[in-house]
Amino acid sequence: MQITILPNRIIIPKDQETLMEALIRHHLPVQNICNGKGTCGKCKVRMTGYVSPPSEGDKKHLNNIELQAGFRLACTVLPVDGMVVELNFVESQDRKVSALQEMKTSTLNPGLEKVYIQSSKPTLEDERGDWDRVVDALSTFTGRSYEKTSLYILGKVPDILREDKYTLTATVFEEKILEIESGDTTKKLYGVAVDVGTTSVAIALIDLNQGDILKVVSTENEQTAYGADVISRISFAMENQESAIALRIAIRRTINHLLDELERQTKVGKNEIFKMTIVGNTTMHHLLLGLDVSHLAVSPFVSVCNRPLEFSATELGLEINPQAVILLLPNIGSFVGGDTIGAIVGAPAVLEQGNHLLIDLGTNCELFLKTDQTMLACSTAAGPAFEGAGIAHGMRAKKGAIESVTITNGGVVCQVIGDQEPIGICGSGLIEAIDEMLQSGVINKQGKIVDPSISETLADELRKRIRPVEKGSEFVLAYGSDQGQDITIGQKDIGELQLAKGAVCAGIKTLVEMAGITVTELDSVTLSGTFASYLKASNILNIGLVPNISEDRIKTVGNAAHVGAILALLNLQEVAMAGELYKKINHIELGGSTTFSNYFMDSMYLERLS
Amino acid sequence: MQITILPNRIIIPKDQETLMEALIRHHLPVQNICNGKGTCGKCKVRMTGYVSPPSEGDKKHLNNIELQAGFRLACTVLPVDGMVVELNFVESQDRKVSALQEMKTSTLNPGLEKVYIQSSKPTLEDERGDWDRVVDALSTFTGRSYEKTSLYILGKVPDILREDKYTLTATVFEEKILEIESGDTTKKLYGVAVDVGTTSVAIALIDLNQGDILKVVSTENEQTAYGADVISRISFAMENQESAIALRIAIRRTINHLLDELERQTKVGKNEIFKMTIVGNTTMHHLLLGLDVSHLAVSPFVSVCNRPLEFSATELGLEINPQAVILLLPNIGSFVGGDTIGAIVGAPAVLEQGNHLLIDLGTNCELFLKTDQTMLACSTAAGPAFEGAGIAHGMRAKKGAIESVTITNGGVVCQVIGDQEPIGICGSGLIEAIDEMLQSGVINKQGKIVDPSISETLADELRKRIRPVEKGSEFVLAYGSDQGQDITIGQKDIGELQLAKGAVCAGIKTLVEMAGITVTELDSVTLSGTFASYLKASNILNIGLVPNISEDRIKTVGNAAHVGAILALLNLQEVAMAGELYKKINHIELGGSTTFSNYFMDSMYLERLS
Repeated sequence: MQITILPNRIIIPKDQETLMEALIRHHLPVQNICNGKGTCGKCKVRMTGYVSPPSEGDKKHLNNIELQAGFRLACTVLPVDGMVVELNFVESQDRKVSALQEMKTSTLNPGLEKVYIQSSKPTLEDERGDWDRVVDALSTFTGRSYEKTSLYILGKVPDILREDKYTLTATVFEEKILEIESGDTTKKLYGVAVDVGTTSVAIALIDLNQGDILKVVSTENEQTAYGADVISRISFAMENQESAIALRIAIRRTINHLLDELERQTKVGKNEIFKMTIVGNTTMHHLLLGLDVSHLAVSPFVSVCNRPLEFSATELGLEINPQAVILLLPNIGSFVGGDTIGAIVGAPAVLEQGNHLLIDLGTNCELFLKTDQTMLACSTAAGPAFEGAGIAHGMRAKKGAIESVTITNGGVVCQVIGDQEPIGICGSGLIEAIDEMLQSGVINKQGKIVDPSISETLADELRKRIRPVEKGSEFVLAYGSDQGQDITIGQKDIGELQLAKGAVCAGIKTLVEMAGITVTELDSVTLSGTFASYLKASNILNIGLVPNISEDRIKTVGNAAHVGAILALLNLQEVAMAGELYKKINHIELGGSTTFSNYFMDSMYLERLS
Repeated sequence: MQITILPNRIIIPKDQETLMEALIRHHLPVQNICNGKGTCGKCKVRMTGYVSPPSEGDKKHLNNIELQAGFRLACTVLPVDGMVVELNFVESQDRKVSALQEMKTSTLNPGLEKVYIQSSKPTLEDERGDWDRVVDALSTFTGRSYEKTSLYILGKVPDILREDKYTLTATVFEEKILEIESGDTTKKLYGVAVDVGTTSVAIALIDLNQGDILKVVSTENEQTAYGADVISRISFAMENQESAIALRIAIRRTINHLLDELERQTKVGKNEIFKMTIVGNTTMHHLLLGLDVSHLAVSPFVSVCNRPLEFSATELGLEINPQAVILLLPNIGSFVGGDTIGAIVGAPAVLEQGNHLLIDLGTNCELFLKTDQTMLACSTAAGPAFEGAGIAHGMRAKKGAIESVTITNGGVVCQVIGDQEPIGICGSGLIEAIDEMLQSGVINKQGKIVDPSISETLADELRKRIRPVEKGSEFVLAYGSDQGQDITIGQKDIGELQLAKGAVCAGIKTLVEMAGITVTELDSVTLSGTFASYLKASNILNIGLVPNISEDRIKTVGNAAHVGAILALLNLQEVAMAGELYKKINHIELGGSTTFSNYFMDSMYLERLS
């Protein structure tokens, strides 16, 4: 019996195994929070062709649209020969205008260039070796010397030179010759910038001749199957060597999957890509490289390497041109990684004179505070709530996700990505919903859903949307049509957001105090993160996710870490800046800070932060 | 049925196959000049344990000592299960004092160094990454920056650092960190210098802390099985890709075999060797690297690469430390390679003021002429006669080889390496024998063995040593004892030496003419080559192998190419010198020179060269 996992994997399930068990055994990415009990509803897959009849679990967790589209919970599916299953869904950035597209192109200086060389045929008077004549012509053109080469290049130079009258195109990165090709291919010069998030991975394909972003795609980090946050990934990696390898394979496969998708969508061959920049938190950085994460787990927390690193694509098993150069931006410390350096590079206004705070929102949330005296950075475990995970009806910001909520006494209006019936709620929708619930009196500042029977002020339309569930109560944002599921926010969901918000908030207070200023002295607060640009300043001010300063000093910049990776791809000066920056920033360990613990409990209240 | 090929290869012969056929099918090195007809006697192997009964062919070509020692011709041996066979014999340099040992140690500057680092334990105040603290300590010590590293090093640094209280030894080559080890291993710093000859390969193991040569071993190039000279190797490589691969494997295995032997003899682990320098002619260079040799075969003759090259041991499949640096000295042109550059580096007096000629004797013989106006180099195919091959009783200069011959009217006195019964004659013995035969009247200056029945001047003792054979006649140098074979020099052997000598001689005349000087204007003639230091100036002057200048201007320097490789191992300045030198030397193509062809026929006479 065989099952096809799209796009091109075949697996053979064992007897009696559920689809989820088979997927896990093959290290394929599937979320498994309830351990196959069918209660979490997270192990959604999509079946194409033959679709199993919906189980009770499917009906409970999936709405009609999903069931009709072939979605099922993998833990309830029994494999059938010839089944075809799709696991994760690469998304093009289709939500409004991508923040990345607004980025202004910096001066182009990628270090990577293609040079078309016209050499000369050997004669009795000119018996220079094939490679010697290539290097001579190239050095004349670029003014650089090229001392090193590889057997790969030497192996092909005789044929390439003779293929087209002693002309060829050399692809060079600084003083290294990466590739030679027959003919003039200088028009094709591509690179990719990768943002490895704990939950999501995004890749931008860039034309390095023009500085244009050709396409951005993203998908779930396949490592999610092994744990939702960095702490659980580290624990899993430490179990045994196989686990660490599984994590390394998962993230490399996620990136390769996105590279396939970029090739499919843009027709730019993966082999045409000669430069990659990568940003990620320190744990993602280590897991991608296959480095020991055990010293990230105990105090004093130390990484294997903070310095910027350079590898070839072959070394990292990433499927662009094997000779391509891969640059990893430096880490600041064990829990503040190259993604924060990337975010600073991507939002350089935070380095201007004055006091500036940068909040990079994600499963792992990083804070960077720059004053005229110091630069501090820390990380705080927000959990996956901001990315729509760990929330009953939470989902990533894609079609069908509620992205905005307005609550009036007349009821609730939801704005859904793709203008369709909602199938869940994403991070930005959740934050707005909770602020709206707070403002309309559905919840109080402790985050508690009010008891509709004793509340005197609540409008009837809202009152009837509050209903009891197994534990506590929930508030209905949208009623499902036909047999579709209602989208609700439960007491537990609110608690998840409060924990995330509390962690960020306490982190801010700690950093500000360590820098010797107060929150009111902040000249600006910049929020970054894929969904940050969809947040409304009023909502985050109201729930106290950011300090209570005037709205015009709150900025949102989209995924600044990814922008930083793109800038580093486009310009080596940005790489050099990153290489200086990481040494100057003090890494603050919140885990060891009593200031942080003291602030944490107070910070869960949904109120302005001052 | 299995046969063990020492030291550790198992092969399975097919039905009806001879041992030689099985060896060839497995690409194992065995000489096969007569194509298995049993007439050339070159496919000698040694059997240990079970030894086949000697065949007629064995008895004809091998003497008693050899038969008793288990030597047999592979073409007459029928495989038997469990047979154990030794193919080639590594030799320590046991002939008088090795010329290498006399080399004066140059200033030590190998570029390679080991640094013992004492780093510090991470604390809450010092959370630098593991690798960051290593690089910081190292940079403080050496004053250099280390930008690049490998996953290999990053993968092991956490454990190595913690193994011995945050101390470790780093092995660095220029700005690259090759290896890290726990504890202080700075006392162990080794390199090897390799001379890849067409016929022989020699490796010297050097202590790079002291500059001492610890051991030199040499053996036959396994490629010899596929052809005796560079032309036949090139033809074989061009047959198909498998042939080219067989040649690459053969030379790499020869080197690895010698590395095993060095480890066995010196107890210095192969893994302790971090630097290798290689010299070889352009064909050997290309075959070792697996480069296309087809353009070396047609005019204009062009190599793939003349420039100096640097690789890691892993890239070349050579079994020293996988991270070790391998430097290949540059080639001058398609037929004058890094061995000539090595010879010049190893005998730098040829660069002094005046006119100097360097003759590197070998299967492929290179000439280098330096005048105050120009530097010229050419190659001439001497054939394997100088190395004792292609001669009926020829052998490499090892135990049992006649190395010196004195002929008087009273008879012939032979000096044998190892003071034993002779089993053959080596190159230097052959040259002396031929001069002595010339001086005593056994042959005339045309090289013809005189007819004893009509010669009037020849002493009786010599006369009776001349006897007729199938083609022409032969002269007995040594009568075999018991059933041992007589060692003789036949008309064909003399012809082989005349061809070799003629090629060298015509090359000298051509170069000198091109430089606009005469042979008498040469201030010095330096002969290099493993056996050159065993040559007597009078002999080579008499037969006209060198120009007829006063004996005191004739110098012999042993294997100067190997000395050059050793100097390049010891001192990067020698590498830099080689890197400048190859660009300044004009490569002369004798194949296209009518001057050379005109001189060639005249040059075969055994007479003084003026």
